[in-house]
Amino acid sequence: MSKNVSTSFIQGIRKFSPFVLPKFSCRMNHFNASLVPKDFRPFRIGLVQLASTANKNENLKNACAQISEAVNNGSQMVVLPECFNSPYGNQYFNDYAETIEETSPTYQALHCIAKDLKIYLFGGSIPERKDDKLYNTSMIFNPSGNLIGIHRKIHLFDVDFPGKITFRESDSLSPGNSMTIISTEYGKIGLGICYDIRFPELATIGARNGCCMMIYPGAFNLTTGPLHWELLARARAIDNQIYVASCAPARDMSASYHAWGHSTVVGPDGMVSATMDEKPGIVYADIDPEHMASTRKSISLYTQRRFDVYSETKPLKLNEN
Amino acid sequence: MSKNVSTSFIQGIRKFSPFVLPKFSCRMNHFNASLVPKDFRPFRIGLVQLASTANKNENLKNACAQISEAVNNGSQMVVLPECFNSPYGNQYFNDYAETIEETSPTYQALHCIAKDLKIYLFGGSIPERKDDKLYNTSMIFNPSGNLIGIHRKIHLFDVDFPGKITFRESDSLSPGNSMTIISTEYGKIGLGICYDIRFPELATIGARNGCCMMIYPGAFNLTTGPLHWELLARARAIDNQIYVASCAPARDMSASYHAWGHSTVVGPDGMVSATMDEKPGIVYADIDPEHMASTRKSISLYTQRRFDVYSETKPLKLNEN
Repeated sequence: MSKNVSTSFIQGIRKFSPFVLPKFSCRMNHFNASLVPKDFRPFRIGLVQLASTANKNENLKNACAQISEAVNNGSQMVVLPECFNSPYGNQYFNDYAETIEETSPTYQALHCIAKDLKIYLFGGSIPERKDDKLYNTSMIFNPSGNLIGIHRKIHLFDVDFPGKITFRESDSLSPGNSMTIISTEYGKIGLGICYDIRFPELATIGARNGCCMMIYPGAFNLTTGPLHWELLARARAIDNQIYVASCAPARDMSASYHAWGHSTVVGPDGMVSATMDEKPGIVYADIDPEHMASTRKSISLYTQRRFDVYSETKPLKLNEN
Repeated sequence: MSKNVSTSFIQGIRKFSPFVLPKFSCRMNHFNASLVPKDFRPFRIGLVQLASTANKNENLKNACAQISEAVNNGSQMVVLPECFNSPYGNQYFNDYAETIEETSPTYQALHCIAKDLKIYLFGGSIPERKDDKLYNTSMIFNPSGNLIGIHRKIHLFDVDFPGKITFRESDSLSPGNSMTIISTEYGKIGLGICYDIRFPELATIGARNGCCMMIYPGAFNLTTGPLHWELLARARAIDNQIYVASCAPARDMSASYHAWGHSTVVGPDGMVSATMDEKPGIVYADIDPEHMASTRKSISLYTQRRFDVYSETKPLKLNEN
């Protein structure tokens, strides 16, 4: 599979011209290292805004094709959306659910593509079967194809907007019971799934425990999307001076659930680095420790907090690889 | 002083036509009371975006005139901006500082106007002298003219944007050491001053301790204003499903500090309820427990938090009246 830099399907790159797409080398940080996590290195991330169907095999094939495209365009880390191998809805989760094991089709597809392309792959989420329960679960693979973490959605999507959308994920799913931080060669990444982003503690704890970025595969809808999707990503970023990447499915008005789309990367200054509309595509962003350092140097939240006036937020259950 | 409803100088009202400005009565809440603080009643707030000068007496006179205007237009609670009786800058604070006592000119002016107009007055902030130190301090008066609380800015404004703005409030001021929650007949209000808004713990603790609103007198500048002023207010609101009111000075390009203006009220859904530009004026908003109740009913953050996974944020030093 070619890894030559291609310019097709590129959406959302703001820093680089589509005609010049340098791959970051793993250069040393020249800025004040105390301002950023010491393991944070530059990388390019690609968020695959996938058009899923009711056919799981098609979804896996399509996901792998788009991951390849993202890598062709320089991505060293790729993210898939929430529930990318299945339609989204309580009526589908049981039928599409898999156990997390090497022989399961989604595990196998993600393992192989991560290993083939030598990338970190944040595998969105899938309906997971474990014992007699179902979860909304993300698998994370490293460039050797090893599963290096899983995150089970902690806060289930139970909302009620009368006349607009009512959904109770808890009718079919069980919640995860632990936060997740993944160590990579580019830095630590905190993980949440969709509705998890409404609970600031995950990003607060992630950032204060050395994460350079929070990744949220998510599928907001046409009510909560325009209201809150971008605002929540920007809020998590500005309060913690970290990168935030939110990866959504593409919108399919023939499906029963209508996703907002608008996959987005926000910088540590709270400003949108890269985003797109609701159609299938890939959002790219170059993640830059120097940008975090300059943000934190300008506004020194990390030395100015007053833990003599209010308590620090602590993790009670945290999984790290 | 007339309390007839006037339509002049009204800016930012969205819900009410300027030709029909009913005053809220203290009606009972008809919604599910468990969703909102039980002492929360509807009220109209007016944020005075004041044009301050180097003349303290003029500033006090002008503030009182604008407070009267806000009350004429139905405000039951009025907010002034940060450092409203003085130019903003380390070179001014000592000269303009007052002790918090009945004979001090700013205390006296705010006490009298609150009592005369029978309103809650959140007196922005002033440079305060206490012992041998200076603070950035807010005084809050009730409709009897009694001082019911003070808040000393906890997080001092020390920023460094090379080539744009460098400011170190800590060169002249000392920080406050306590959070502040004020009980009023309309509900509890949490208070922060300007840079305090960057630290989410104040609003988190305020909301989880029964506040219906956070009020932030603030004077963001032409660098941090367009970047972060509205985003921070919206972030505090959406994460806590409370109202947030940020009251700024009007911009004066002949002064040494250029304020962003854009006084703003954000609703519990994170959407801007009322705002304005950088010129002198008053922003009005009708604060509505039913809006908070419907927001919290649609998205039930208050029952969905997972304090088995992460710790609750606790106040360590909190003043309540």
